[in-house]
Formats: sequence, C-alpha cells, structure tokens
Amino acid sequence: MTVTRPLPNYLIQRYHGWRATSFEENQTWYRRLADDGQRPRAMVISCCDSRVHVTSIFGADSGEFFIHRNIANLVPPYAPDGEQHGTSAAVEYAVRSLRVAHLIVMGHSRCGGVAGCHAMCSGQAPELEDATSFVGRWMDILRPGYERVTGLPADEQVHALEKMAVRVSLDNLMTFPFVASAVEAGELSLHGLWHDIRDGELMMLAEDDRFVPL
Amino acid sequence: MTVTRPLPNYLIQRYHGWRATSFEENQTWYRRLADDGQRPRAMVISCCDSRVHVTSIFGADSGEFFIHRNIANLVPPYAPDGEQHGTSAAVEYAVRSLRVAHLIVMGHSRCGGVAGCHAMCSGQAPELEDATSFVGRWMDILRPGYERVTGLPADEQVHALEKMAVRVSLDNLMTFPFVASAVEAGELSLHGLWHDIRDGELMMLAEDDRFVPL
Amino acid sequence: MTVTRPLPNYLIQRYHGWRATSFEENQTWYRRLADDGQRPRAMVISCCDSRVHVTSIFGADSGEFFIHRNIANLVPPYAPDGEQHGTSAAVEYAVRSLRVAHLIVMGHSRCGGVAGCHAMCSGQAPELEDATSFVGRWMDILRPGYERVTGLPADEQVHALEKMAVRVSLDNLMTFPFVASAVEAGELSLHGLWHDIRDGELMMLAEDDRFVPL
Amino acid sequence: MTVTRPLPNYLIQRYHGWRATSFEENQTWYRRLADDGQRPRAMVISCCDSRVHVTSIFGADSGEFFIHRNIANLVPPYAPDGEQHGTSAAVEYAVRSLRVAHLIVMGHSRCGGVAGCHAMCSGQAPELEDATSFVGRWMDILRPGYERVTGLPADEQVHALEKMAVRVSLDNLMTFPFVASAVEAGELSLHGLWHDIRDGELMMLAEDDRFVPL
Repeated sequence: MTVTRPLPNYLIQRYHGWRATSFEENQTWYRRLADDGQRPRAMVISCCDSRVHVTSIFGADSGEFFIHRNIANLVPPYAPDGEQHGTSAAVEYAVRSLRVAHLIVMGHSRCGGVAGCHAMCSGQAPELEDATSFVGRWMDILRPGYERVTGLPADEQVHALEKMAVRVSLDNLMTFPFVASAVEAGELSLHGLWHDIRDGELMMLAEDDRFVPL
Repeated sequence: MTVTRPLPNYLIQRYHGWRATSFEENQTWYRRLADDGQRPRAMVISCCDSRVHVTSIFGADSGEFFIHRNIANLVPPYAPDGEQHGTSAAVEYAVRSLRVAHLIVMGHSRCGGVAGCHAMCSGQAPELEDATSFVGRWMDILRPGYERVTGLPADEQVHALEKMAVRVSLDNLMTFPFVASAVEAGELSLHGLWHDIRDGELMMLAEDDRFVPL
Repeated sequence: MTVTRPLPNYLIQRYHGWRATSFEENQTWYRRLADDGQRPRAMVISCCDSRVHVTSIFGADSGEFFIHRNIANLVPPYAPDGEQHGTSAAVEYAVRSLRVAHLIVMGHSRCGGVAGCHAMCSGQAPELEDATSFVGRWMDILRPGYERVTGLPADEQVHALEKMAVRVSLDNLMTFPFVASAVEAGELSLHGLWHDIRDGELMMLAEDDRFVPL
Repeated sequence: MTVTRPLPNYLIQRYHGWRATSFEENQTWYRRLADDGQRPRAMVISCCDSRVHVTSIFGADSGEFFIHRNIANLVPPYAPDGEQHGTSAAVEYAVRSLRVAHLIVMGHSRCGGVAGCHAMCSGQAPELEDATSFVGRWMDILRPGYERVTGLPADEQVHALEKMAVRVSLDNLMTFPFVASAVEAGELSLHGLWHDIRDGELMMLAEDDRFVPL
C-alpha cells in the first residue's frame, strides 16, 4: 500500500497526446538513445522555477542537455566529506562519466531563492536562519555573494545577487579538482547565463566579469 | 576576470529564434508570471538524464511545473541537521512556500545512477564505495531499495531498482513533517511515475504498490 | 607540382576569424566529437544550390546532421551492380554504419537541375539528352517524376516537378533493402521537405502525399 | 500515401525561429537571389561528415558556395559513358552552367570513408570488397591513392590517405575536359584543403604538392 494517488486526468491525456505525436515522430532517435546511451554535449544547472525551462529557450532535442535543477542554480564548494551532495554528484557524473563539453550555469530574474537569501542575510527573515530550514541552509551557499553586493543601493541588491549566484556557482565549480583539470585540459568550457523572465532577454557572463546581452 | 567562455554561436542563434517566436507569442503570459509570481500546480522530481524531459511529456506550459532534477530522482530522508540538502530545500520551498497541489516523482529506464547503485551494492563498483565519490554517496539513498530487490533473478534487479527508486523517494518524502501533514490535510497529493525511454511508456504507481500502464 | 592555387585571401581571413571565435567556443565539443566519433541523429539529402543551407535553417550544431548534397537532391534506385554510386554509398554509410534515426530529403524552389530536367523531358534541351551530359544523365533519375506532372498546366509543371523530386527520391530510398528494413523495424524515419528560397517557407510531405506548410 | 513521417517538433520550432530572425533579416537578399538566380563564386566538394560544415568555417553567406558533399570528398575520373555520375554532374553544372571561379576540394581528419578504404585495400575489410558494397565501390576511387601511401609506416598511412584523397580528386578533376580548359583559360582555380576537425587547423595544398598551414 502506498500513499500515492492517481495522476490527474488532464496529465494522463497530455501524456497520451505526446506519445502519439512527439514521441512517435522521434521514436527512432529515442530508441537509438536508449540502446546506445546518452551523449549530451552540455550540462545545464538552472533553477527549479516553473518559469525557466532551458530546453525551450535553446530548442533542445532529447539527448542534448544533461540538466540539474535546484533552488537558485547553486553549486556548493567541493567537499568530499562522505555526506550526500546531490549537486556535486550531478556535476561529477556529467564531467567524469558523460564527459560533457560544456557546463552552463543559468540564473534568472525574480528568483524566490535569491530573494529569500537576501532577506535572510539582511536580517529580514530570521526563520531562514533556523538550523531546520532547508532553504535557509541551502542559501548559505550564496552568503559570500551577498557580501559582494552590500555596497550597492538597497533596491539594486537583489537583482545583483541573482547574477552573483551564477558567479558564485562558477567559482565553486572550479574548486572541484575534476572540473578544474578538465577546464585546463581544454575538455570542458564553463558558461554563465542570466535570463530575464519578463522580457525574455538572455545575458552572458563575459571575460571582464560583466553580464552582456547576447 | 572569469574562467567562463562565450556561448557557442548555434545556441545564441537558437535563443534569438526562440525569443522571436515562442517568447513573442507568449509574452503577455510571461509578463504576468513575472509580475505576479509563479504559482505552479505541481512539483516534479525527475532525473538529470538528457533523455527525460518532463516538460515535453506533459506539454507543460511555462509556470506549470516546479522541477527539481537530480541523479536518479532521489529524495533523502528528512534530516534537519543544519547541513546543505538541496533536494530537501526544493521540496520545502515547493510545499511550504508555493503550496503545490501535486508532488510527482518520476523514474525512468536505463538510468545510469541506478545502474551504478546496483553495481556498488553488489560489489562490482568498489570505486563508488569511496568516501570521496559524490555519486556513490548520493546513491547511498537507494541502498534500502537494493535490499528489497536482492531476492529477484539477477537480470531483473536493475530494472526493479529503477522503480524502487521512486518508492524509496516517496517513502522518504513522507518523513518530512510538512509533507506528511499536507498529505493528511488533503492539500498535497503524491504521485509515482516510471518512464520507459525506449518505447515511451509511462507507468503509474498504483495503490497496491505496483506500477501500472497509464 | 600541382595545378592548385593559393586560397583567396578573404577566405583565409574568414577561416582565421572562425577559428578564433566559433571554433574556440566549441572546441571542447569538437574535441569530444573527434575523439569519440560522430553520432549524427539525421542524414539530410539536399541540393548543391548555394541558396539552401540546411544547417542554417535548423540551427544545427556540429555533429547533428550527416549531409549529402547533389544536384536536385536525388536518390537513384537501388542498383548493386558494382559501379560507383556516390549517393547510394552515402545512404549506405549513414544507415548501416552511423545508424541515423532520421533521413530527410529536402527539395527547394527555383532548382536549376529540376528546370533542366523539365526542359530535357519536354524536348527543349536536346543537349541534355546527349550521352556525355553528366547533368542530363543524372536528371534521368527524375524522368518518372516528369511523367507524373505532364497532366498539369504548363506553367505549373516545373514547380510540381521540384516537389516530385522529393517523392521520387523517397520512393527510390525504399528500394534499398537496408533502408526498407530499418524503416519497418522502426529504427529509421523518412521525411520529405520542400523549401521556398524566396519567402523562406518550409513545407512537409504529409501522409496523404501532399506538401503542407509547417 | 507515403512512408514519410512528421518532422520532429524541435526541428519545426528551430525552423520557425530561423525564419523569424535570420531569414527575416536577410530577406531582401534572399529575394534577390531567388529572382535573379544564384551566382556562387566557388564550388566546394567536401565530405558528408557531420563534423565538417564548410559554411561555418568560411562564414559563408547564402549564395556564395555551391556545395557538393559525398563520402570522403572524392571526384571520380572523367567517364562520359552515359551512366549516372552524381559528382560529375555537380562539377559539370558548377563549371559549365554557373561558371564558378574557384573549385575547392576539402578533406578532413578522422574520415570514416578514408579509414574504410585503407582497411579494404590492406585486406582488413573483405566485406567492402563485395560488389554490392556501395561504400566499397565508391572508395575504389581512392585505390590509386592507397598505392602512394603504402611505403609509409603503418601508423601514418590512414592520415596520409586522407590528404591523398584531396590530391586524387584534384587529379581526376583535371581529366574533365571542361575543367582543364577552364583552368588553362584562367577562368577557374583549383584549391586543395585539409581540415583537422580536432584542433580546427586548416591546411592548404601548396604548389610543391605539400599541405601547409594557412
């Protein structure tokens, strides 16, 4: 006996529609991917947010992107302490087993996680400081980013922190020895993106550490 | 200065194409979602695998699904120990802040993470036992599932373990007090799915704890 | 000593620009593709015409499409006679060695080869009938298509013949045993497209044998 | 009724994106090209390989290159025997009808066709010797090239044969009377290139019959 419930009917209907159309159109390729294994060219780390689907933005086919999604697209620093690190496991699998060529971190505007982090760090959300707050502890990863935006006017800080989340994740990625060595060997490229969900704009982290429109 | 590199041009072109078409056609809805905030009806926990995109299968519109993707669609047991738990943070945010009505865990066939877990538990992948293996430690979550498939013929175990990953995650979800109370209050439904990536079939975990075709 | 000449300087300059930008951005992926081999999902058969580049239309990345281009995107019937059949060799390699999932034949408007075929078949281009005319003999492949458009008003025949070239090629593809068996086994999908180079429209051959706008 | 299938949706989406951006931006030029006909300055003969797109390397605009792609970028010797010669037809059309100024043959590294030819000629691929092997019979064109590399150390032969494929094709091109006369009249230049797909290098066949970096 389980606690699960039947899937809502509208989802079942959509699934049947998908299988009769999109799956049908692609079935030879799906079969090939199933038999021979995936070989994605890129890993994408983006937010769980329901308004940001990277497969749409890049017209990605099945098999192209290995996608990890968590709150605020964060990567923690390298910590081989024997504990469970889901994000680090995803990065390890993508870089070492799948040997992806690109690793893209994509942040976005109006991110609830980033807003929560800013509220927490600026003393406006004490409940997030609690040891039992999973969101709070997860957003601790972004605390170093908060330090780097405190000099800005108050009304610009949250926005800046969204972009800082991308930089912090990229910095943390480079603390993983297998990421750093793959980057140095020219086998892996890192990319930082930030997406404005309201006007659709996509910005790229450039070599001078600024985000520029694509 | 950063280590990031420019985005490959074909992705930039596809983005511009997306913005001129899909985004343009939906911009009033995107704007509304940006201004009013997301209000997804469901959270989906699925695998990072590049062959499994739940947005396609369910024809999900922007704003519908809050999606967490990790290796092998696992949820660890409730552990409010002050450490960083990315998956638990995503669940907490979805259930407590967004108050989603559905929480769907979706497994799939030919999952590299599950295969690795089976190899590790059956003594064929000692490197995954190492404390520094992020994938190995992450797959520890599924060890209780392995115990439940050892009675099966050897060639059925991996396949059974893929489905067990869904059951283990659902069981673990119920150890989160806020999940259990929302389920009991009738405010949250849990759902278990398993997807065959080769033939496109979707199976649902039924009340008798078996997976049945939709 | 050879008869070759140095490459024009503007092409050398463009190559250097490409290598410093596009190649540089994609080099990790190019390296991976070089080391592990190509695994294209589709073969495309299109015309040599300088106005039809399928990689642009589909924003194709390196490694996605295996492309054969010949005059008028024609495929001859299966003829295992020990002679040199370049198109048949390309199809054989794509289907049997690379095991592509999709085989796309794309025709286009204002095709010089098709116009020549129409002129030849309607008696207006006797020089193409000559045994030494490579273009004429190549366009013989499309003669069965000409028979199927002669009932149309004169000013619609060339246009109809462009689309017939796609149908004839698809019919001929099915005479290759390894194509037919892969299609029947669900391992290969055939697709017919026709592109209007003037207004950019792309049409698809539908199940009722008519071309419909995408 | 046809055997064709609907085009996968991600390709349809990308096409719509292309039409709304690249096509839209260039439509006056596309219209001009459609109305006045193509007038490419060069014909390029390159391989079907999905990793070699000459339009990218040379940033080619629509209308610039008339492109023939076959297995291993081969040109057979002149043989006006009334049979179907697709490559010869493409050359004839480019030189006699379009009167291109340049004819470029571009080989590349890790060519599957060349590797197959080497295996066949060295007795390691008897299946390619079969009269019904289209790839084998097509690669017969390169047999004279194999004879010229047998004196090299075994591990250098395949690589040398890739470059020999360019030389053989250029030699064969000069057996076409209309090519030879256009070259002699100064109306057509032949060029030989070889591209390393792993490191992006492009080499040019120089007057002393050696390939030199550009």
